[in-house]
Amino acid sequence: MISENTEIGLLFDHARPERIGLPEAVFCQGKHISVLEKLLRESAAGRSRPILFTRLAPEVFAQLPAELQAQVNYHPLSRTAFSQSLSRRSTARVAVVSAGSADAFVTWEAARTLEYLGINYEVFEDSGVAGLWRLATRLEEINDHQVVIVVAGLDAALASVLGGLTPKPVFAVPTSVGYGQAQGGLTALNSMLVSCSPGLGVFNIDNGYGAACAAARVINLLRAEAE
Amino acid sequence: MISENTEIGLLFDHARPERIGLPEAVFCQGKHISVLEKLLRESAAGRSRPILFTRLAPEVFAQLPAELQAQVNYHPLSRTAFSQSLSRRSTARVAVVSAGSADAFVTWEAARTLEYLGINYEVFEDSGVAGLWRLATRLEEINDHQVVIVVAGLDAALASVLGGLTPKPVFAVPTSVGYGQAQGGLTALNSMLVSCSPGLGVFNIDNGYGAACAAARVINLLRAEAE
Amino acid sequence: MISENTEIGLLFDHARPERIGLPEAVFCQGKHISVLEKLLRESAAGRSRPILFTRLAPEVFAQLPAELQAQVNYHPLSRTAFSQSLSRRSTARVAVVSAGSADAFVTWEAARTLEYLGINYEVFEDSGVAGLWRLATRLEEINDHQVVIVVAGLDAALASVLGGLTPKPVFAVPTSVGYGQAQGGLTALNSMLVSCSPGLGVFNIDNGYGAACAAARVINLLRAEAE
Amino acid sequence: MISENTEIGLLFDHARPERIGLPEAVFCQGKHISVLEKLLRESAAGRSRPILFTRLAPEVFAQLPAELQAQVNYHPLSRTAFSQSLSRRSTARVAVVSAGSADAFVTWEAARTLEYLGINYEVFEDSGVAGLWRLATRLEEINDHQVVIVVAGLDAALASVLGGLTPKPVFAVPTSVGYGQAQGGLTALNSMLVSCSPGLGVFNIDNGYGAACAAARVINLLRAEAE
Amino acid sequence: MISENTEIGLLFDHARPERIGLPEAVFCQGKHISVLEKLLRESAAGRSRPILFTRLAPEVFAQLPAELQAQVNYHPLSRTAFSQSLSRRSTARVAVVSAGSADAFVTWEAARTLEYLGINYEVFEDSGVAGLWRLATRLEEINDHQVVIVVAGLDAALASVLGGLTPKPVFAVPTSVGYGQAQGGLTALNSMLVSCSPGLGVFNIDNGYGAACAAARVINLLRAEAE
Amino acid sequence: MISENTEIGLLFDHARPERIGLPEAVFCQGKHISVLEKLLRESAAGRSRPILFTRLAPEVFAQLPAELQAQVNYHPLSRTAFSQSLSRRSTARVAVVSAGSADAFVTWEAARTLEYLGINYEVFEDSGVAGLWRLATRLEEINDHQVVIVVAGLDAALASVLGGLTPKPVFAVPTSVGYGQAQGGLTALNSMLVSCSPGLGVFNIDNGYGAACAAARVINLLRAEAE
Amino acid sequence: MISENTEIGLLFDHARPERIGLPEAVFCQGKHISVLEKLLRESAAGRSRPILFTRLAPEVFAQLPAELQAQVNYHPLSRTAFSQSLSRRSTARVAVVSAGSADAFVTWEAARTLEYLGINYEVFEDSGVAGLWRLATRLEEINDHQVVIVVAGLDAALASVLGGLTPKPVFAVPTSVGYGQAQGGLTALNSMLVSCSPGLGVFNIDNGYGAACAAARVINLLRAEAE
Amino acid sequence: MISENTEIGLLFDHARPERIGLPEAVFCQGKHISVLEKLLRESAAGRSRPILFTRLAPEVFAQLPAELQAQVNYHPLSRTAFSQSLSRRSTARVAVVSAGSADAFVTWEAARTLEYLGINYEVFEDSGVAGLWRLATRLEEINDHQVVIVVAGLDAALASVLGGLTPKPVFAVPTSVGYGQAQGGLTALNSMLVSCSPGLGVFNIDNGYGAACAAARVINLLRAEAE
Repeated sequence: MISENTEIGLLFDHARPERIGLPEAVFCQGKHISVLEKLLRESAAGRSRPILFTRLAPEVFAQLPAELQAQVNYHPLSRTAFSQSLSRRSTARVAVVSAGSADAFVTWEAARTLEYLGINYEVFEDSGVAGLWRLATRLEEINDHQVVIVVAGLDAALASVLGGLTPKPVFAVPTSVGYGQAQGGLTALNSMLVSCSPGLGVFNIDNGYGAACAAARVINLLRAEAE
Repeated sequence: MISENTEIGLLFDHARPERIGLPEAVFCQGKHISVLEKLLRESAAGRSRPILFTRLAPEVFAQLPAELQAQVNYHPLSRTAFSQSLSRRSTARVAVVSAGSADAFVTWEAARTLEYLGINYEVFEDSGVAGLWRLATRLEEINDHQVVIVVAGLDAALASVLGGLTPKPVFAVPTSVGYGQAQGGLTALNSMLVSCSPGLGVFNIDNGYGAACAAARVINLLRAEAE
Repeated sequence: MISENTEIGLLFDHARPERIGLPEAVFCQGKHISVLEKLLRESAAGRSRPILFTRLAPEVFAQLPAELQAQVNYHPLSRTAFSQSLSRRSTARVAVVSAGSADAFVTWEAARTLEYLGINYEVFEDSGVAGLWRLATRLEEINDHQVVIVVAGLDAALASVLGGLTPKPVFAVPTSVGYGQAQGGLTALNSMLVSCSPGLGVFNIDNGYGAACAAARVINLLRAEAE
Repeated sequence: MISENTEIGLLFDHARPERIGLPEAVFCQGKHISVLEKLLRESAAGRSRPILFTRLAPEVFAQLPAELQAQVNYHPLSRTAFSQSLSRRSTARVAVVSAGSADAFVTWEAARTLEYLGINYEVFEDSGVAGLWRLATRLEEINDHQVVIVVAGLDAALASVLGGLTPKPVFAVPTSVGYGQAQGGLTALNSMLVSCSPGLGVFNIDNGYGAACAAARVINLLRAEAE
Repeated sequence: MISENTEIGLLFDHARPERIGLPEAVFCQGKHISVLEKLLRESAAGRSRPILFTRLAPEVFAQLPAELQAQVNYHPLSRTAFSQSLSRRSTARVAVVSAGSADAFVTWEAARTLEYLGINYEVFEDSGVAGLWRLATRLEEINDHQVVIVVAGLDAALASVLGGLTPKPVFAVPTSVGYGQAQGGLTALNSMLVSCSPGLGVFNIDNGYGAACAAARVINLLRAEAE
Repeated sequence: MISENTEIGLLFDHARPERIGLPEAVFCQGKHISVLEKLLRESAAGRSRPILFTRLAPEVFAQLPAELQAQVNYHPLSRTAFSQSLSRRSTARVAVVSAGSADAFVTWEAARTLEYLGINYEVFEDSGVAGLWRLATRLEEINDHQVVIVVAGLDAALASVLGGLTPKPVFAVPTSVGYGQAQGGLTALNSMLVSCSPGLGVFNIDNGYGAACAAARVINLLRAEAE
Repeated sequence: MISENTEIGLLFDHARPERIGLPEAVFCQGKHISVLEKLLRESAAGRSRPILFTRLAPEVFAQLPAELQAQVNYHPLSRTAFSQSLSRRSTARVAVVSAGSADAFVTWEAARTLEYLGINYEVFEDSGVAGLWRLATRLEEINDHQVVIVVAGLDAALASVLGGLTPKPVFAVPTSVGYGQAQGGLTALNSMLVSCSPGLGVFNIDNGYGAACAAARVINLLRAEAE
Repeated sequence: MISENTEIGLLFDHARPERIGLPEAVFCQGKHISVLEKLLRESAAGRSRPILFTRLAPEVFAQLPAELQAQVNYHPLSRTAFSQSLSRRSTARVAVVSAGSADAFVTWEAARTLEYLGINYEVFEDSGVAGLWRLATRLEEINDHQVVIVVAGLDAALASVLGGLTPKPVFAVPTSVGYGQAQGGLTALNSMLVSCSPGLGVFNIDNGYGAACAAARVINLLRAEAE
């Protein structure tokens, strides 16, 4: 029976990271500090494949031993950490465009995931439709990237406006910014899903990591097709 | 005891239409055809004060006697009817701006209510952010009105964009256009409520009548202050 | 390309505050103390245009340097702060009417925003329908204002009652007061949206700032039309 | 074992109608016409105890044999029917107060249930807060009843206002009148549940039957206590 | 104008407590400690009419001066306080029946409100349908009361079962006990609203105070009718 | 590669019906009449394995050719059809207990699925807690079955009561009976999920088919263990 | 002023279809037959640019003049129509994988949109996880496409399973198939949004058109990068 | 009267634990430490029947006297405690299969409840569909158990996949793992309820205890039938 199972393994999951091009990530929120320390230590020592740690809160990171903290590339705003990133294998670039500075924790989770995945990116913050001219002045530069990630909360109007101004694949991430009928990001999510701009792929609320993975799938495809 | 009640009547409701400047409206949906016929007949005969009939469906109107139909100013798209409108007492104008032609039944409910109230208006349809340049070319003209009503469904991005481009009082009406997460207009409603553009007064889904009444309150104020 | 962008800037956003008559506001909730200190310091030093800070919690304000606290006009109940307000350019007045003292944090956010905008106002607290005679005794005085802001939580019955008693533009703000099916203000919001009193512009839950901006749009219109 | 079961029957349900004072009702919606015809025929023939039929739509009633229709006391507006009502055993009276004529199908379901139960009642329609003086002129008369049923849709402000003006037991029924955020009566229901007027017992949306039963429980108590 | 207002006051609210038989209550949650201290002190000194304080958390009460604490009748479980209760004017009694001990904070809010109102009551805790025989052994005793308040969370099956076993007025209070799909009491609330037992008046989640007020309305009616 | 796939087929799905003991079912709602006719014809001709057709509405069935109708075992109330049922391989029995006759379309979908699966069953309708003594008199007989399916709408109190009275596996199916806060069965579903009776497996609203399949899993286990 | 507007037009929308690579689509649902006839006639006559008509119901299409029907490429299952499609400019291919035949109306809306856009595609229906081996046997072939669209309703488990088995860009479309807690597709939508497989771009319920547009953005990028 | 009640007691609840085979459990969350200490002390002293304590948080347990802590079998991860478990009376075994380690608090609540009930079990953690081969290698072993409990959060795809691969009774528990549209477990719950795999009994979010009780009902049935 084992041989059959192995074959299934080969077909279905033999070396998952290589197969789908996306190494594992550890969602830290809710995990015990001792578990995180063990995983980070293994990663820092190179005993595991590269791992991205997401939702690692600053106050949790601060509880780790100082020498371990020193070994890890940690970014408090995005709450991400890794010890080794993947090697850069493409010149393609991703534009990460956000509506406001309040969205930064998501904007930078996307950006840091791209960095970890070895993908070039540029961040265009504070491009919300309240300041339409700012978006206009940056549009040509944004369109000079292969993929666009748009991060916005509240009414998420930026996603619709930008989606109508770029021919590139657009991945839209709603954020939990706001109060009342912002509903913790649900209004932004729904606005993106029903946007009149066609062809926006939408992600879970605050899921900058997911949008970066989607961008990576496209970048990987570009590289694979070019080979 | 009667005299006291009369005084309360005087204080609280003596001649409501005159007091708040908004004559009565009859919401026809769900009312029996015989009730509607009676009310329309009284109104057509001038036996009642002017009355606006809203949500009067074409298939219901078609069931009325032909001679009564002929006496009524009926507008099928907006599903509104009236026999007499109020006299025009102001030169102020209201811009009714809509995102798309699918919003027309609401756009025109607002416009027709303004017509009935004796208020000047102009309709700017199909101004959605998918065609941002169309909005841009009309902006100066829109801003030449005293009040702006914006009608939009789906993500209602038009409300945020326009709210950031006009200094005028803006009344925003979400529409039930769309499917799935458009949620019958709830997404548009919530987007308008959390719009980053400050100071948009929002109305119930598809309530073009309400926004027109709000505009009338402002127009009435302008006239009263100018007197 | 730059010239074109500049033109768009001119058309779309050249001097936004002046154009729509509403200076910028900073929503402080969720922003880091260091960011807030920097913004407040610039504002206090007159290095930026006037800025209104909303949702600045007392416990956050208390963490700021004492000398900076002294330079700022801070109001703990409404959680608002500013260093300079706009100059008063109109004699028009806004009535801010609230149902109960529990709504005060929203009532005063509206009032303080008006103060910052240089607009006259008077606050009528504790006017809920449970004490209908209190509202009656104040009605004439309320109607002596150009614009009415009504603040209410729970069933928000005050909005319907007052909306039927005043001809003035009415802006209604639901509050998050209550428990259970008050649903954090959602019931009040929906009650206001479906109020039988016609023409009430509604705002997001607890958004006193938004209603004040709407009132300012009307006051600005009055002044512009009078010129 | 049978004897024990019988005892339980005696304790728990021996003659339910007599015990809780409320005879059975048949909810007709969704039941097959043949089932309804059989039940109505038995009831009309006096072969069963008195039964109230609720939610019996006019178009369904019209499908019944003419001779059966003639034997039944049917009321199309309230969609209720019965062949025999209970005998009147009390002089106590119930006031059924409604906000508007659109609520009539619920108002009269309550009234007709009272009629069937042999309880005196009076209906006060069109007493909504939009016409506050109408309520005021009727208040003394309403308070001359032992129990008050209030029927209202939309924002249900009438329940709060009336609940603050009467010392009598108040039973509040939300109606499904309205559109958009009226949410098929959910907004009215929630408004009633969080009303600032204390001690309002609330019922399911459109459940006039339930409120009448609650009133009957009070009337029955009055009679029992007086004996 | 003042005289008219006074008349309205006379008609509408002159001495509300006496009129509707329910003295004022202060909802303490969210109120500042200094406000509560002031109100409690006035009440304790007899400078105000009797006042019931609800939702006064033990940790808040503990912050009050010891001498004030000593003057107040405080009950931590129900989070209620008062200095003087109303005089007992009726021999009628209210049964407060609860499903489980986890519902006690609501059960006792109802009981304490009755105590404050000068109404006799008995509490029957732990009567949930999981132990149906316990309810059966208490049923006769419960039915010996004039009014029944039923307090239950989760599926609230007790309300339906008890509602089918008693002819007395039944007021049902859902509680926020439970997790997951208990939805903070919403499931219990909805179960009570759609109970197959007819004539249950339902209250907001955890609102023991409201059900006690409804019971008081019935008790007051009994007394008034007997006079 | 094909051989590997075949092995996976062997491991994962070789003859699914035999493996999990549950033959295929066709959900007819929304399928075109021509598709249904083709599937029914194949099934009637014995050209396919036994298939259960669920949600086959009477008005759809009536459109099929008469000779095909004659070949099929159709049950209009439950909207189920099959041409061949599975052979009876166990003496174990399932009790299907329902709260009221309005639940019959679900009750009988469960019963008919059991019939199709070749499993003995008995139906106990109209056992709701409103008539507690009826349930009591049937309890011993119900407990004489190996598995209990309970079908209830509205507050679903029957599930809690019965779950506390039987030691057998209990599968609970909420029904969409009722209006208003019955929410199309959601209230019944949630009540079942939070029932204080431990160990009730719950199914989707109106899913009598699913509960019967769960019962079949238990019956199949009993037979397999006994072999 | 005109010249400025023209420049904005140039920057923002000069020839939108060409710029973002996605020609206009007409959402037919809710549009009047006369409007649709006019648009279809223009399109068929080549008087407009190519237009895709979505949600054009068979019963609506049947009302059009026969000669117009003959000029249009109409596909009833997907409810799509067009007269001219775009020219094929790429050899890249899109795999459209669906869970079951009930999802076909969405599956084929995606496929037909690709056909209209001149993009190669292959449809893999009935690949749901209930028949895991079917997916396994098709996996290699699916992965031979550049982009994967996955269409699934109910629990949408296929999206998670397939997302973990392919490195290609994956666009996931939930469908409104099912009843009860399927919630018209909301459960499938949420399942896709929280899928443990990283990097799935999600679309509105039943929005096969949107996913095809997203695929087109990727295909267009591939072609542009290869040039 | 007492004798009758006793009989009802005999019929309905005489020794509930023995009758339905499930001893009592104490839900500790929200209970006061003093109450828990008393109950635990009685249980540890053997003065009560065996009791399972669920949702006993580590920080609460830590507040108990050290000697009492020593007497109790406490398991922090599952937050369960008991002093005596039931005797093992069956060789049947339950497989507890979970999607990921984040689900462990629920997985082990189920496992610990089984341990307390004296039922054999094995835990198969980290079997989510992201690593489909892991599930495949364990499938034969899982199917060697009499009952399967499946624990999963997020999209709960594991329930559908496993439900299609095992003929055994399957009890599915959604977990509150995740953020955003995971909705605290509601998405997993709904996915399980609409799973295309037939016959999965579903439980409340995080209710591992309930699924274990359902498994116990089946195991108890197996033993009873074998006797």
